[in-house]
Amino acid sequence: MNNEMEKAGLFGLGQPNDAFAQYFIGQSYLNPVTTEGIGIFNVTFKPGCRNNWHIHHAGKGGGQILLCMSGRGWYQEWGKEARELHPGDAVVIPPEVKHWHGAAKDSWFAHLALEVPGKNTSNEWCEAVDDAVYAKLN
Amino acid sequence: MNNEMEKAGLFGLGQPNDAFAQYFIGQSYLNPVTTEGIGIFNVTFKPGCRNNWHIHHAGKGGGQILLCMSGRGWYQEWGKEARELHPGDAVVIPPEVKHWHGAAKDSWFAHLALEVPGKNTSNEWCEAVDDAVYAKLN
Repeated sequence: MNNEMEKAGLFGLGQPNDAFAQYFIGQSYLNPVTTEGIGIFNVTFKPGCRNNWHIHHAGKGGGQILLCMSGRGWYQEWGKEARELHPGDAVVIPPEVKHWHGAAKDSWFAHLALEVPGKNTSNEWCEAVDDAVYAKLN
Repeated sequence: MNNEMEKAGLFGLGQPNDAFAQYFIGQSYLNPVTTEGIGIFNVTFKPGCRNNWHIHHAGKGGGQILLCMSGRGWYQEWGKEARELHPGDAVVIPPEVKHWHGAAKDSWFAHLALEVPGKNTSNEWCEAVDDAVYAKLN
């Protein structure tokens, strides 16, 4: 792939994800697809970029679904092995589960993030993914 | 594209959509992506295939979102011009709006269909899209 737009997959690169940069290591981009009915955002990660451990809280419903669109990435839940992600993969992230997601160290990665509707939803951002642990993911 | 799997885009062809065939003209295929949190299905239409006019009813919330993945298709709301669809397009279908969607007559088409959660949701299937009207869509 020759440019960043292509690396973002079908749903576009959008803008540098400045609002959430404090919760990410490396550069990500955010493109809103729709905020009607279900909040859907395309998130594109440069190689090595990943978000911090975080939790989607909800009183009812809630959580997030990732639909992988381009490149290669990782998803990990606290206390579990990391899961390698490829285009066409779907990840259902339940509410209240501490997790992170992002690119592989040698690949761009793009996924759609779908906000599962719920009551009293909020996000809790936690510590960064340990560099040494991330470096072992091939 | 050389085969039906490729025509389905990233999220797979699945099986012939027999359960809904009575509400479609032509052959479609259905592949469930997930039914946790949000019901997400990949729908693939052969050239010329489209569903009947239909309405997503809901007491609260509801409706559907289409994320176009492959090929070329159409979406039309009752009383409006048809909208041509390409990969990367998103369509927010509000509840209570009569509409149809499907392939162009000369192209396969695949979209993800996302069920927007709601209360007391149901689908009402209506008449087929008129052949003469469909034939005019290029």
